[in-house]
Amino acid sequence: MEVERKEWTLEEYVHGGVPTSRHLQLRTSTMGVSKDDVPDGHVLLRLRWLSVDPYLRARLGSQRDGLYFPPFELHKPVTTFGIGEVLETKHSNFNAGEMVLNTIAPVSEYCTVPADALRKIELGPDSGVSALDYLSALGIPGFAAWIGITVIGNPKPGENVFISAAAGGVGIVAGQLAKLKGCRVVGSVGSDAKVKFLKEEIGCDDAFNYNVETDYDAALSKFFPDGIDIYFDNVGGQMLEAVVNHLNTHARIPLCGMISQYNQVWTDRFGVRNLLNLVGKQARMEGFMLDWNRFGEFVEEMTGYIKQRKIVSKHEIYRGTESFLESIQSMFTSSNAGKVIIQVNDEAKA
Amino acid sequence: MEVERKEWTLEEYVHGGVPTSRHLQLRTSTMGVSKDDVPDGHVLLRLRWLSVDPYLRARLGSQRDGLYFPPFELHKPVTTFGIGEVLETKHSNFNAGEMVLNTIAPVSEYCTVPADALRKIELGPDSGVSALDYLSALGIPGFAAWIGITVIGNPKPGENVFISAAAGGVGIVAGQLAKLKGCRVVGSVGSDAKVKFLKEEIGCDDAFNYNVETDYDAALSKFFPDGIDIYFDNVGGQMLEAVVNHLNTHARIPLCGMISQYNQVWTDRFGVRNLLNLVGKQARMEGFMLDWNRFGEFVEEMTGYIKQRKIVSKHEIYRGTESFLESIQSMFTSSNAGKVIIQVNDEAKA
Repeated sequence: MEVERKEWTLEEYVHGGVPTSRHLQLRTSTMGVSKDDVPDGHVLLRLRWLSVDPYLRARLGSQRDGLYFPPFELHKPVTTFGIGEVLETKHSNFNAGEMVLNTIAPVSEYCTVPADALRKIELGPDSGVSALDYLSALGIPGFAAWIGITVIGNPKPGENVFISAAAGGVGIVAGQLAKLKGCRVVGSVGSDAKVKFLKEEIGCDDAFNYNVETDYDAALSKFFPDGIDIYFDNVGGQMLEAVVNHLNTHARIPLCGMISQYNQVWTDRFGVRNLLNLVGKQARMEGFMLDWNRFGEFVEEMTGYIKQRKIVSKHEIYRGTESFLESIQSMFTSSNAGKVIIQVNDEAKA
Repeated sequence: MEVERKEWTLEEYVHGGVPTSRHLQLRTSTMGVSKDDVPDGHVLLRLRWLSVDPYLRARLGSQRDGLYFPPFELHKPVTTFGIGEVLETKHSNFNAGEMVLNTIAPVSEYCTVPADALRKIELGPDSGVSALDYLSALGIPGFAAWIGITVIGNPKPGENVFISAAAGGVGIVAGQLAKLKGCRVVGSVGSDAKVKFLKEEIGCDDAFNYNVETDYDAALSKFFPDGIDIYFDNVGGQMLEAVVNHLNTHARIPLCGMISQYNQVWTDRFGVRNLLNLVGKQARMEGFMLDWNRFGEFVEEMTGYIKQRKIVSKHEIYRGTESFLESIQSMFTSSNAGKVIIQVNDEAKA
């Protein structure tokens, strides 16, 4: 049996600016979906949900763009995290009908992957965890938020925590985690609607719109009269520089990503002039990726929060793999509140 | 009994550039040096040696210069670390004739200080430690080097360590410490004579002159073909940016100071554009001051190294308190190799 498969490939590296249809193209091909088409040790999936994250932008640049994430290969499918159902299997750990998390899911409806890229997930009313949780609070964004806040930030009750891109997939989990640790949390976002969203749905103590409060230094003086103890940085650039003027002694800056900088070639990026302040404030700035050695610990803690509804996932759903380019562009226009997810087909239920 | 005392005071904050006689002035006054002139709990000292350090430049700017070290008060004496002999005492812990380290020594020959600013030191042929050691390897510069290399850097044998301003008071100790920890050590300095000094007297594996190797990026490619694991930063600015392009995964950057940036007002300082690299490299940048809770631990480790002559102090001696302004200016012209120290009077013996 064969199906027509649409799949996004990277046709040209993005050397600056937002990805367009010149860089990312939707290709159509046919694909065998019988058991005979599956190599040994592999599993055939029908994907239901796909994760769209800012770091993908970094993987669309070549090594010379200085983004320092492993670039995708040209003329090959771009991959992300996805949730799918096992259709056919040639690995004894997986059975047809099971739902799995695929860590190298192409932006497509069907894929054949080595079993070691998959993790079984438990869904259903009894689990207390939804498929979408696995792509947000319990997935990459939640894991990034947990490492930044818990491992690097190590917050103490009463500390002042600032989160940029606070309504994004990572930001909403970081904010909720910091609140659970007893901190005062303020987020920055790009629209007034998101300010409302953070205060009413995410539980932030306060929030501001950086398109309105364009003097970041003044905004931080207003929202952090007692200074900043932890800055969870998702944006870099001018906001990072402004924050460095408001740090308390022994402040920590987990660097999760720098969405304001991804679309510039590196020599055009914003130069942070006040790093000298880190000396006087004995402050630490630390970049991080996902440390899989701690994934189990994260899953345990986060599953507890989700089941007790102490941490909720919020999503911005795009429909169909065709929407991938639009969904990735949307992350640079402040239009989303919550985790961006593609619903691959109508059968996908959260 | 009275003596004529010359003492340096700060008459105007330095808002940019190198301090001049407009900012620092040598004042003459008379001072009583009888026991009756000493308040209770105080000690009268005749100073022998004074420490001149780059961080003093930061204290000569006002708060608005964004240097984030506590500024000296205007029209008051500037203070530093000094070694002196007790002349008169009104505190039972100290006796006339003892040698002490004074943590708030004016740049002068005589001073009266509260006893809690003093630490007794042991000199003499049996101690294995000289007076100058207390101002260099066993003093502020050595303590800074130890925190940066040992506490923040946490080096593993075989790692590649880069040290800027490597022939300075802090740099020479940092380099020797990193060698003792089994690392490959390369330093940057401002003259060919210092390149030779680092390789022949400090034990660095290699060194380069940044005034000759003006393309820092190319220089680091040449001297660190395997990347940089620890960058002990004394200079900030362009060299820091270049280093951030050469970091290995999990690299550490202890920020000790940024001598290239002290003479600029903050908005003129060099902007570091590639902090995004810290994310991909999971690298940490951490500012530090002296953590006195760890001073005992430092003294124990460092005294051992000094007695075994595993770490040696190197000095650039200026003579007389009159030389203070010249000595501080010299730190910005690459003219010194080793720790800058003022020999206050001829009786001072190391």
